[in-house]
Amino acid sequence: MRPNKLREMWKADQAVVNGWLAIPSAFSAETMAHQGWDSLTIDLQHGLIDYQAMVGMLQAISTTETVPVVRVPWLEPGILMKTLDAGAYGVICPMVNTREDAQKLVAWTHYAPQGTRSFGPVRALLYGGADYPQHANETIVAFAMIETAQALDNLDAILSVEGLDAIYIGPSDLSLALGCRPTFDDVEPKVAQAIDHILERATAHGVAAGIHNGSAPHALQRVDKGFRFVTVGSDARLMAAGSQQVLAAMRSR
Amino acid sequence: MRPNKLREMWKADQAVVNGWLAIPSAFSAETMAHQGWDSLTIDLQHGLIDYQAMVGMLQAISTTETVPVVRVPWLEPGILMKTLDAGAYGVICPMVNTREDAQKLVAWTHYAPQGTRSFGPVRALLYGGADYPQHANETIVAFAMIETAQALDNLDAILSVEGLDAIYIGPSDLSLALGCRPTFDDVEPKVAQAIDHILERATAHGVAAGIHNGSAPHALQRVDKGFRFVTVGSDARLMAAGSQQVLAAMRSR
Amino acid sequence: MRPNKLREMWKADQAVVNGWLAIPSAFSAETMAHQGWDSLTIDLQHGLIDYQAMVGMLQAISTTETVPVVRVPWLEPGILMKTLDAGAYGVICPMVNTREDAQKLVAWTHYAPQGTRSFGPVRALLYGGADYPQHANETIVAFAMIETAQALDNLDAILSVEGLDAIYIGPSDLSLALGCRPTFDDVEPKVAQAIDHILERATAHGVAAGIHNGSAPHALQRVDKGFRFVTVGSDARLMAAGSQQVLAAMRSR
Amino acid sequence: MRPNKLREMWKADQAVVNGWLAIPSAFSAETMAHQGWDSLTIDLQHGLIDYQAMVGMLQAISTTETVPVVRVPWLEPGILMKTLDAGAYGVICPMVNTREDAQKLVAWTHYAPQGTRSFGPVRALLYGGADYPQHANETIVAFAMIETAQALDNLDAILSVEGLDAIYIGPSDLSLALGCRPTFDDVEPKVAQAIDHILERATAHGVAAGIHNGSAPHALQRVDKGFRFVTVGSDARLMAAGSQQVLAAMRSR
Amino acid sequence: MRPNKLREMWKADQAVVNGWLAIPSAFSAETMAHQGWDSLTIDLQHGLIDYQAMVGMLQAISTTETVPVVRVPWLEPGILMKTLDAGAYGVICPMVNTREDAQKLVAWTHYAPQGTRSFGPVRALLYGGADYPQHANETIVAFAMIETAQALDNLDAILSVEGLDAIYIGPSDLSLALGCRPTFDDVEPKVAQAIDHILERATAHGVAAGIHNGSAPHALQRVDKGFRFVTVGSDARLMAAGSQQVLAAMRSR
Amino acid sequence: MRPNKLREMWKADQAVVNGWLAIPSAFSAETMAHQGWDSLTIDLQHGLIDYQAMVGMLQAISTTETVPVVRVPWLEPGILMKTLDAGAYGVICPMVNTREDAQKLVAWTHYAPQGTRSFGPVRALLYGGADYPQHANETIVAFAMIETAQALDNLDAILSVEGLDAIYIGPSDLSLALGCRPTFDDVEPKVAQAIDHILERATAHGVAAGIHNGSAPHALQRVDKGFRFVTVGSDARLMAAGSQQVLAAMRSR
Repeated sequence: MRPNKLREMWKADQAVVNGWLAIPSAFSAETMAHQGWDSLTIDLQHGLIDYQAMVGMLQAISTTETVPVVRVPWLEPGILMKTLDAGAYGVICPMVNTREDAQKLVAWTHYAPQGTRSFGPVRALLYGGADYPQHANETIVAFAMIETAQALDNLDAILSVEGLDAIYIGPSDLSLALGCRPTFDDVEPKVAQAIDHILERATAHGVAAGIHNGSAPHALQRVDKGFRFVTVGSDARLMAAGSQQVLAAMRSR
Repeated sequence: MRPNKLREMWKADQAVVNGWLAIPSAFSAETMAHQGWDSLTIDLQHGLIDYQAMVGMLQAISTTETVPVVRVPWLEPGILMKTLDAGAYGVICPMVNTREDAQKLVAWTHYAPQGTRSFGPVRALLYGGADYPQHANETIVAFAMIETAQALDNLDAILSVEGLDAIYIGPSDLSLALGCRPTFDDVEPKVAQAIDHILERATAHGVAAGIHNGSAPHALQRVDKGFRFVTVGSDARLMAAGSQQVLAAMRSR
Repeated sequence: MRPNKLREMWKADQAVVNGWLAIPSAFSAETMAHQGWDSLTIDLQHGLIDYQAMVGMLQAISTTETVPVVRVPWLEPGILMKTLDAGAYGVICPMVNTREDAQKLVAWTHYAPQGTRSFGPVRALLYGGADYPQHANETIVAFAMIETAQALDNLDAILSVEGLDAIYIGPSDLSLALGCRPTFDDVEPKVAQAIDHILERATAHGVAAGIHNGSAPHALQRVDKGFRFVTVGSDARLMAAGSQQVLAAMRSR
Repeated sequence: MRPNKLREMWKADQAVVNGWLAIPSAFSAETMAHQGWDSLTIDLQHGLIDYQAMVGMLQAISTTETVPVVRVPWLEPGILMKTLDAGAYGVICPMVNTREDAQKLVAWTHYAPQGTRSFGPVRALLYGGADYPQHANETIVAFAMIETAQALDNLDAILSVEGLDAIYIGPSDLSLALGCRPTFDDVEPKVAQAIDHILERATAHGVAAGIHNGSAPHALQRVDKGFRFVTVGSDARLMAAGSQQVLAAMRSR
Repeated sequence: MRPNKLREMWKADQAVVNGWLAIPSAFSAETMAHQGWDSLTIDLQHGLIDYQAMVGMLQAISTTETVPVVRVPWLEPGILMKTLDAGAYGVICPMVNTREDAQKLVAWTHYAPQGTRSFGPVRALLYGGADYPQHANETIVAFAMIETAQALDNLDAILSVEGLDAIYIGPSDLSLALGCRPTFDDVEPKVAQAIDHILERATAHGVAAGIHNGSAPHALQRVDKGFRFVTVGSDARLMAAGSQQVLAAMRSR
Repeated sequence: MRPNKLREMWKADQAVVNGWLAIPSAFSAETMAHQGWDSLTIDLQHGLIDYQAMVGMLQAISTTETVPVVRVPWLEPGILMKTLDAGAYGVICPMVNTREDAQKLVAWTHYAPQGTRSFGPVRALLYGGADYPQHANETIVAFAMIETAQALDNLDAILSVEGLDAIYIGPSDLSLALGCRPTFDDVEPKVAQAIDHILERATAHGVAAGIHNGSAPHALQRVDKGFRFVTVGSDARLMAAGSQQVLAAMRSR
């Protein structure tokens, strides 16, 4: 089975630089994949993307060595399994708030005996190889998003779930949940403290920690702190930011 | 943030005339939007439409002042939140049968502290404006569908849920639920009585009441009774009815 | 091979009542096909439809007995042949202005020895049957649109082209070409005269004449005059007209 | 209402030969439908297909007498009802593990009073006929998949649910659940025994039993044992197998 | 009819800042349109976009005041007219090399008596308004691309064609045609000279001149020289460039 | 630039085994690409495929080492250039009947000074590499289809066009053109003779010869004769043939 570069980089104690995709287009995905991101996450939650568009984007990413990751809309078995069958090598699941949530996430993303994932890796066989069924459980990475007060309360119970390999922090939702203004980078102190705490506990449990960032400098700071999967920018944001620069230059006179 | 004409009309005690979309096409949606409907509802439940087609239809409606509303397939957080992130200004949710259902609907459609909606209004920012996060909670309208015997039993418990602004009646499902023939307008007496009751209780609770109609005369009668959101016709039905008229005329000889 | 109802009706001296499709949706096409139109024309010229959407619409129409017709964007061999391979039983070609144009139309829509249509009726075999190659030439109908002053000048030269079975009049373009206001029904006298002339010459040449109409009464008058293929209304127009009626009723107070 | 050939064949004690669709294309579905399969199942669970592609495929199948069946991704009311509204005459539901699961499946696929299916058979009316609402409950077939150890434990409780007409076995998932290697045909003895047991109990309860097969000989053996719905092959597998044969021949030298 | 901001800006002697779209997605088009470009050009020639995707992009752009322009793949009447019927307010046509080419371009983009554009502005009526037919000829802008040695030879013959309002220079193709390396900004002297010559002749004929640029500084220089329509950047290029900046920052250590 | 395996195999005097794609689906294309075909041809002429579907299929093929080839609908510059910009490494052009046709084909598929291909290899840069512009002319392969009596008459004139690297024979069209029954393999003697003649002349001119076949044995015979590009089977045909085998087996009792 094709190895998962995420796990390889983590073994080498390297931080994965992840790009983000919100545009439902295989061509923009392919363009992004050719820029050299370690991984790209197709966002089915807040991106303008559904399953069928995602398949084309996974194919586009598969023309390169970039690792295809998908954020699903919700902790729901149908879409989690469809996403894996389509060849995602990582899934990010929002709103994992309890130990039971984390157990479901592990169960739905692993074949028996570790879990209850249904068998039918139709495209995953093409992408991963004929021995995908034998190795999928220890190759695929499932990220539980820690982004609510409830999840903070249950943090160790979640992190100690057998088979949970990684967590992911959405600073905006975490801010909202803690009564703060939603943002990626310059979070309020209460949120910054919570982020540090999550990172510390994840590291203690041997669980890789990832986080969403708004800019490279912040992402680098977080890598320094110990994050091993940092998202910076998205297709739509980069395009908009680039446009703003051009238009500002053109209208500077 | 762009104001929601639904709320503005309700403040002025006006009834919203809503059109219905079952055809998965941005062009038919745009054609409908240019006819002057106050709002248009994209039906993800019984229409032939899924999320990706809906996005194109929302864009098409956004070329006009018509308010974009979406009926989701079911009370499920994933699709409710995706729909709002895509820029819907109203959502209609089927089968809200208990107080707990109504609480979930409010929670999933409002940001903290009123609810638990996840943050990421990617297209909603384009449609609503940069201050969408600050005003979404009091701008968006969530309709709970009252259409089962169980919902009738729990009517006051549902209507008194904090943050529930509107309800919507599907006369066909309500008829079925009460053991009657499914229809929109000429409902059986038991159903007519239930509709009046729902309207009376909604009004008492200060909740706007909406209803599906088969024809303009019935819709007008219901407006007179106090309904403030009346659906008449759908893209597919209007097209079929128009065809029947033409074909009848052509074959009259 | 599945017979072509157009030819059968013409043999019985009946006028075909044709509906028009401008919305790129297989579901609206299927809805229209179930209303009982004799044929439906997918408009690739002025409709919002291209080839791939057309294929889905042809499939949708194929669930009924309605004859699938396609208007191509232009007299161009690529799209004419693709349309036929996809299973159209009639093609309407705009702007056939000269005898040479008409000869090209016949050549590109017929297999050798009558023409030069390339062989590969991939979906046409499914729709028409395994013996499609043997009978396509005498089953399919190609309509040449007569809609310019140049075409009027070359009328007999066009109509006498061997293998040209039908012509179609676009009153709007014909009006424009004659310096008049574009409309379907209440054309200016100069245009009305031209239409009568075209019909008279087509009939003399044994060529079936078709025409676009805005309403059933005008279509019936034209059937009485001798037209054998009359289009009335379109999906988008019927939907818009129905909406206008509903909205007028709702706002009458 | 158009009768369901599945029920007609079962009444005549015939086994339905079912094909499988994993490719999201209306044209491949139409090609398959023209081969003469009794039914075709569009796989929304492990196939690369979502709802919108499914609609086009249902339309394509509707050009023939082949019965359209859909496997939904999960036991979830939204997609079950959307699938039926789109005109599926059979639904296969994965992972029905308890009596309560089976009751939900029956409820969500039947109108009141037998169930709680919401009313709005928008395309089903076109495919089934205007009297669809009156006859859908006794025409549509819902298959519960029996594929886990838990389902085996609850077998009689599941099979005795009023209104459950059919079950379907996925040998791969059943194998995994029993600690065996996932495969379709040459299952391990423990799995073979479980399959026989399920068939025996289903037959005792008057419930039709279906099963997934990898090849015609195994399917025939299972028909001999009493299965009344046998799947053999899929669009993608047949295409791949045919390619392998051609390439082997071409490279034999 | 909705006025064309291009013409209004030219009357005010202002230069239009035009963005470029190569990604076939209505969402990326809508994102770009919200950045404030004066116009956006959907590139059907070298972009990964065809007609159907273009329609969705035109709708997306129509949610803003940005002017929708389309570059067609070739000087071909079918696509030119389809593009205008879909609501483009400008068309850029490649490879206009002779006076006859320019005359065709004008003819195919104008209604009689100025041209031979076929009548059927189905979506253009929605975007432009009900009086579109009366004003389209003097509102729409058709750009002839001057990018070959042959076009340079015929420059005055092209520029003097009645009804030709604008020309557009593709520096890459022009470079290739003159035996130079294809680039946008730092063109070789022979190309720079040709560009100056084209601009000078266009200005002399009262024809607005546009040009493709790789960066804002070059675009500003060209505005200073007299260009009145300057393209800077494209959706895909801006996204790729932004990615490169992020990745460079992340890997700087 | 990524080398073209077609040219590499021809240099090694090997015959390319080409598969054929008529289904407009990136997933079926990806499935085919993983079977090991040397190249796959996306058929825009007789397949049910247009440009936008083609792009997804090219991406899918690009996940493997299989060479992507496209047959365009007609000798038309717009689609030829769009196809190359999208990353096709070979194009097959129907109906090249004269020396002038062949010259156009060469011109439209080569950059200056060899031709007049417009510059903008947007996706080709991703697939081929950053140096695509420097090497495209000698890497891409353009096939001229020889399939009419006129082409036979002009054979040497066509084959001697500078820059024409390959020809392709469609036995069905050639049969029709010579007054014979259209078929792939068991062609009538007159056609067989013509095929041999074309092969002989192509070889004499140093032009690679390709041909469409219905089965592996015929393809092997043609390889033995000297053909260097042989198509066997297509996605849809293999799927249909496999279905027929299964159904025959199932109904053998």
